[in-house]
Amino acid sequence: MASARQVNAGRSTPVRITVEQLGLARRLSALDTAGPVNVEIINTGSELLLGAVLNTHQQWLCEQLAAHGYVVDRQVAIADSGPAIEQAVRESLARADCVITTGGLGPTSDDLTRDRIAALLHRALHEDADVLAHVEQFFQARRRPVPPATRVQALVPEGALVLANPHGTAPGLVIEVKPNQFRADGRPSWLVMLPGPPRELYPMFTAKVLPLLRQVLPRPPQFVCCTLRSTGIGESVVEEQIAAPLKPLVDLGLELGYCARTGEVDVRLSASGDDAARLVGQAEDIVRRLIGKHIFGSGDDTLEAVVVRLLAERRRTLVLAESCTGGFMAHRITNVPGASAVFFGGLVTYSNEAKRQLLGVRAETLAAHSAVSEAVAREMAEGARVKWGTDYALSVTGIAGPTGASPAKPVGTVFIALAKAGETVALHSFNPFDRETFKFVTSQQALELLRQELLETAGASEQA
Amino acid sequence: MASARQVNAGRSTPVRITVEQLGLARRLSALDTAGPVNVEIINTGSELLLGAVLNTHQQWLCEQLAAHGYVVDRQVAIADSGPAIEQAVRESLARADCVITTGGLGPTSDDLTRDRIAALLHRALHEDADVLAHVEQFFQARRRPVPPATRVQALVPEGALVLANPHGTAPGLVIEVKPNQFRADGRPSWLVMLPGPPRELYPMFTAKVLPLLRQVLPRPPQFVCCTLRSTGIGESVVEEQIAAPLKPLVDLGLELGYCARTGEVDVRLSASGDDAARLVGQAEDIVRRLIGKHIFGSGDDTLEAVVVRLLAERRRTLVLAESCTGGFMAHRITNVPGASAVFFGGLVTYSNEAKRQLLGVRAETLAAHSAVSEAVAREMAEGARVKWGTDYALSVTGIAGPTGASPAKPVGTVFIALAKAGETVALHSFNPFDRETFKFVTSQQALELLRQELLETAGASEQA
Repeated sequence: MASARQVNAGRSTPVRITVEQLGLARRLSALDTAGPVNVEIINTGSELLLGAVLNTHQQWLCEQLAAHGYVVDRQVAIADSGPAIEQAVRESLARADCVITTGGLGPTSDDLTRDRIAALLHRALHEDADVLAHVEQFFQARRRPVPPATRVQALVPEGALVLANPHGTAPGLVIEVKPNQFRADGRPSWLVMLPGPPRELYPMFTAKVLPLLRQVLPRPPQFVCCTLRSTGIGESVVEEQIAAPLKPLVDLGLELGYCARTGEVDVRLSASGDDAARLVGQAEDIVRRLIGKHIFGSGDDTLEAVVVRLLAERRRTLVLAESCTGGFMAHRITNVPGASAVFFGGLVTYSNEAKRQLLGVRAETLAAHSAVSEAVAREMAEGARVKWGTDYALSVTGIAGPTGASPAKPVGTVFIALAKAGETVALHSFNPFDRETFKFVTSQQALELLRQELLETAGASEQA
Repeated sequence: MASARQVNAGRSTPVRITVEQLGLARRLSALDTAGPVNVEIINTGSELLLGAVLNTHQQWLCEQLAAHGYVVDRQVAIADSGPAIEQAVRESLARADCVITTGGLGPTSDDLTRDRIAALLHRALHEDADVLAHVEQFFQARRRPVPPATRVQALVPEGALVLANPHGTAPGLVIEVKPNQFRADGRPSWLVMLPGPPRELYPMFTAKVLPLLRQVLPRPPQFVCCTLRSTGIGESVVEEQIAAPLKPLVDLGLELGYCARTGEVDVRLSASGDDAARLVGQAEDIVRRLIGKHIFGSGDDTLEAVVVRLLAERRRTLVLAESCTGGFMAHRITNVPGASAVFFGGLVTYSNEAKRQLLGVRAETLAAHSAVSEAVAREMAEGARVKWGTDYALSVTGIAGPTGASPAKPVGTVFIALAKAGETVALHSFNPFDRETFKFVTSQQALELLRQELLETAGASEQA
């Protein structure tokens, strides 16, 4: 199962010094390493709740934590308001083994996290000489005077572990919250406060927080996760095909999840414990046997990246002739680094004149069938292939709407053609969606047509 | 102030029928229209907590709500887990005037929102004949059999208002939660359940939810909000230019906000109360006087939509010749409905051969200056314009990376040219960003070059 991502906590770099500083190493053996570890994330920032910025921290932190076997139970975004911060932190500390906050550690008047959390936990704040020296050096290195307000960033709650911030001024702070202070189950919680700017947050999390978590809240040595990505099949059909056959494995501890976007369905298989790799491996075999034709990749694969890789492996070249997708297919292909080795270029031909002049579509074909027809799609692909001298040409013509429809050809009507030496195959589809979804789904169908063709083609090694 | 978007509850399109269906119209006058209305958002989806997808719903909903005077107090993301959904909804209903959930209304076994909320509120579910007919028609229109599991999407909790879903199968659901069922302050709450897919969620929110909210939870009669959108100027420069001159208006109650994305900065001006329109109007005058050259639009305007509109007004036509943006400019232009009237098409020419053959770039120019040069950008634009016979041709050539760079031309080097009758103007830029940001910023600069040119051109009426 080459695609299963194995995460093994036993292999992590130890950070015993920081943990021993807190006098915690002795307690590690007493922790239940088999049970789930629950994490909650609290993102502070009024700009998040005004919709002024996209919360990318949340996705990044969740991805990092999931990859290391930590389950994020809840993510909360709140404004830069003292009562909101206190309430959210109090609620999370009542439930979670680890609470991670982002933001609110800076020097301005709306940075309230440090103060409010210290008050909530009844911990006094003291000025930390090392942190103050770091803040002063930070400004000196940039030949700027130290603004008086930045001094608050050197305040550290009693008993907190300081995470140095090489990329900014505010350090991260870690506090072990006493059992029973907020939780009814008598377990301690870890509270981790991190700065908001991504270039400070991300390296601090990777270098300091993850190693610390893996020591104080160790995960089972075997956590295995595999995401299989499919296209050309609906979410409910995927479930109909695989849910019952996977049931015996689910009963043994396999976790099964679906994520559907228009034109794509992900199947997520994961498990923990000694048997995890075998469970996920067996599940992947079953899913591939039942819907393998529709699975284009795993993990972070995109359909365009898979198509570019197959073209490169088979030493084949491609050109695009787009009408209704308006350049979106070329955009997807050129998002893949290295696409220029296999992608010669593309034409966006909205008008009949352009289809005639630049692709060689015949006036009679346009007159007899109209621009949105299988015949025109075929001539577009064949013309583009001959003109550019590539192995393949992929064309699309259709009605994205809102105008251009007729009773015989409603909005969403699409014809796709794939030309290769000696043969052109065509596809008639119907994608009655809004303009951008139409473009995505149509490009997905066209790229999938090419992928299936490439899978039937012998690889470069067999031809050589 | 033509661009100031006035949001006036009194002027909104009435949706009295739906509200009266619930027997609520009589209570409207009793509501406190001056106090804040608190909204909480609950996004469900295990994929969010695994970091598999970015939560763009949150930003979009917060932005929409803020623009209409609703404060989002808290946003929560939780997994597709029954207990988590119940707990989050119960907590939010104890605090908020309106709770909006997204996701979990689909047909698969991890779609739990409808069931769990009905159970929490003690409302029986019944099959709604209209919704069932809609689901069946949806599949019939796509010539696909109706999967048995989709029938659950026709289940509606007792007393719920159904929001039809023209773009998918699962309807939205609105429930008025009784005072005192969850809140201690004796006020009712509104619970709004929306489908997860953006192309279903967004139009449903705009067309159905906002008008309903503005009736059942009216905002002060004068809430005025105006967002001015700029490009080609950095956030800190915008603030330097406008913050001090706007200070007297801020002291009078104007709210000023900035939202910066790479290549775009929004300035948000808003105010409430009797004086709101005057305050926002004066602020808009000041901002336009100081940075007006860089303001391409307001509200939801996109730069591509503004360019298409200017081309249409001036009866001018455009063709694109793209190298490093790889079809993304054509994609942006063709996202604008009606673009086909002014946009004849585009060429994506990655290779030197394609630049020569399809655009008439001279071999000597390529040899003397290389493909990434002002000379080649000029010949690409001029060649495309002559070939297609348009008024304008816009070309870009550059190094998106990660490969192709040299010491003299590092990753991020870009040349842009705009050809028109008798003249070609060119621009040299440096955009050292990741591949997708590079494409966006480069296309932004090219479209802005065309916009400035179009602004200097007399409108169609003056030429006629």
